[in-house]
Amino acid sequence: MKGTVLYGPRDVRFEERDAPKIIKATDAIIKLSATCICGSDLWPYRGLQPMEGPAQMGHEYCGMVVEVGSEVRTVRPGQFVVGSFCLSDNTCPHCQFGFQSSCLQREFMTGAQAPFARVPLADGTLVPTPELPTDDLIPSLLAASDVLGTGWYAADAARVRSGCTAAVIGDGAVGLMGVLAAKQMGAGRIIIMSRHKRRQELALEYGATDIISERGEQGVARVKELTKGVGADAVLECVGTQQSMNQAIQSARPGAMIGYVGVPHGVQLDGQTLFFSQTGMLGGPAPVRRFLPHLMELVLQRKINPGKVFDLELPLVDVAEGYRAMDERRAIKTLLHP
Amino acid sequence: MKGTVLYGPRDVRFEERDAPKIIKATDAIIKLSATCICGSDLWPYRGLQPMEGPAQMGHEYCGMVVEVGSEVRTVRPGQFVVGSFCLSDNTCPHCQFGFQSSCLQREFMTGAQAPFARVPLADGTLVPTPELPTDDLIPSLLAASDVLGTGWYAADAARVRSGCTAAVIGDGAVGLMGVLAAKQMGAGRIIIMSRHKRRQELALEYGATDIISERGEQGVARVKELTKGVGADAVLECVGTQQSMNQAIQSARPGAMIGYVGVPHGVQLDGQTLFFSQTGMLGGPAPVRRFLPHLMELVLQRKINPGKVFDLELPLVDVAEGYRAMDERRAIKTLLHP
Repeated sequence: MKGTVLYGPRDVRFEERDAPKIIKATDAIIKLSATCICGSDLWPYRGLQPMEGPAQMGHEYCGMVVEVGSEVRTVRPGQFVVGSFCLSDNTCPHCQFGFQSSCLQREFMTGAQAPFARVPLADGTLVPTPELPTDDLIPSLLAASDVLGTGWYAADAARVRSGCTAAVIGDGAVGLMGVLAAKQMGAGRIIIMSRHKRRQELALEYGATDIISERGEQGVARVKELTKGVGADAVLECVGTQQSMNQAIQSARPGAMIGYVGVPHGVQLDGQTLFFSQTGMLGGPAPVRRFLPHLMELVLQRKINPGKVFDLELPLVDVAEGYRAMDERRAIKTLLHP
Repeated sequence: MKGTVLYGPRDVRFEERDAPKIIKATDAIIKLSATCICGSDLWPYRGLQPMEGPAQMGHEYCGMVVEVGSEVRTVRPGQFVVGSFCLSDNTCPHCQFGFQSSCLQREFMTGAQAPFARVPLADGTLVPTPELPTDDLIPSLLAASDVLGTGWYAADAARVRSGCTAAVIGDGAVGLMGVLAAKQMGAGRIIIMSRHKRRQELALEYGATDIISERGEQGVARVKELTKGVGADAVLECVGTQQSMNQAIQSARPGAMIGYVGVPHGVQLDGQTLFFSQTGMLGGPAPVRRFLPHLMELVLQRKINPGKVFDLELPLVDVAEGYRAMDERRAIKTLLHP
């Protein structure tokens, strides 16, 4: 079997490796229906995150179960499943509290940019569909594995409420999913910062009501202008840089929550500034598993179409081009066909 | 009239100054029934906060209205009132959102360690009692002005829920009020960090179930031990130092909120640490006005007794001794009789 390995900055290879096997009795092996490249894969791809040797890439996945370990009870071969990029037992106290992404047994999925993948903690992690989904739903089900669930968590953590004004910082795939989530949660107004035509169009399609193309201080000033000087009721920070975080904080009204899901890279927060701005913060790796059954139902009922976020589809063998396209912002998000 | 002025580190004087007058049509003048010294007064008293010349001290107050400006509508001379240390119009968008401490017209109260005080924005700030309270209720009504409201906000921001485990960092007056608030909100278990006998006793009286005398890493380890390795569901940070904030973050379970009300002094937060610990944060100057009617009702119905937090009562003329006693931790909080 061939799979995707990142050797170093901009060195992605699709190369022969062992097919995954059941290692623990709680594992499952799935045959991927589709996989994709995550915005977070670009951090090491760009050399902005230290690596400890070559890494098997890919943590977003959906597909058919082909084998399960002896202790797996809730999924069986032949079922179509979606799982979170965070593997969790879904029974520990953190899982029960709705934070499966901090599961006491947490592992992060790897190696999913391949035809087959091993999914540890299968019972806690995988959610099967009632029947096999039609092909056109695959991209949206795949999105539920991470990017949709992460945008959803940003909106949930930001406490988007019916009728509220939400501001979304970041027009990447996660930001766009944040728009979709805020819309589903009933936000009356959804402001997104974007200066990229195709992303703007998709944002509008997903429910954005206002597009701000200004950045930094001027972007913040526009948010304030659109909210009569008040600031947004809920802010979704979907980038992870100091600049984007500052923008989020300054766009928030006092008492608003910032849901931040862009992995912070070099972000420092001053306690006194946060204190006097009365900005609330909740972030982290998204507990996608909490939302997964609901999100899959929305997809299967065709109430949402998160799969549109994939604007480039490639055969898995061309995975390196998929990375390049996203790195150069030619693609929002690349779907890969095994 | 004499009033309290801080000239510099440990230089508190009770000296002659002009009696307060109506300056704006929205002002009220009150005759204080009691006033007190706040933990936050100790920052400049200890020289840990820059000062721009001598400062009229005191921001906690309750008493009789003696005069009102021509535009004041909701209070009148002869009424007993309590007001927040944050002055607010209670009508602007931030007030309506429940964050009166970020009111667009916000001012901070000053000069209340005196027999009379001017309260700007009287309509928005002051809450009258239905009838004149008996003397024994004065300390508890005074507490509602800041220390109780601040502890209450810490519990509210930390999202204390029925049956939850709350951890309180700090055994000062605000921390003790945080215990009282958590108890009122139905916390099943309330852990407080304290190594001071009198404060421990008061904490137990207010509803604490567990006292931790260890500090730093060992204190955190004890919280983990008491919660079977999980961490607290809600954390009230009532100090404002880097050490106390670290302790709060490490004591919180993933997904828990930290309500932080100690004004942060030199506190820096690392974005990635907060991200991966999934610690939620909401703090700031407490929007006491939001809680004031409810807190005053609880006091008037004798359901709570926050006034017990005053363990030293002095005539106002001895205000300097009141500061000394708190600075040296001989007193938890000093009440001053004008």
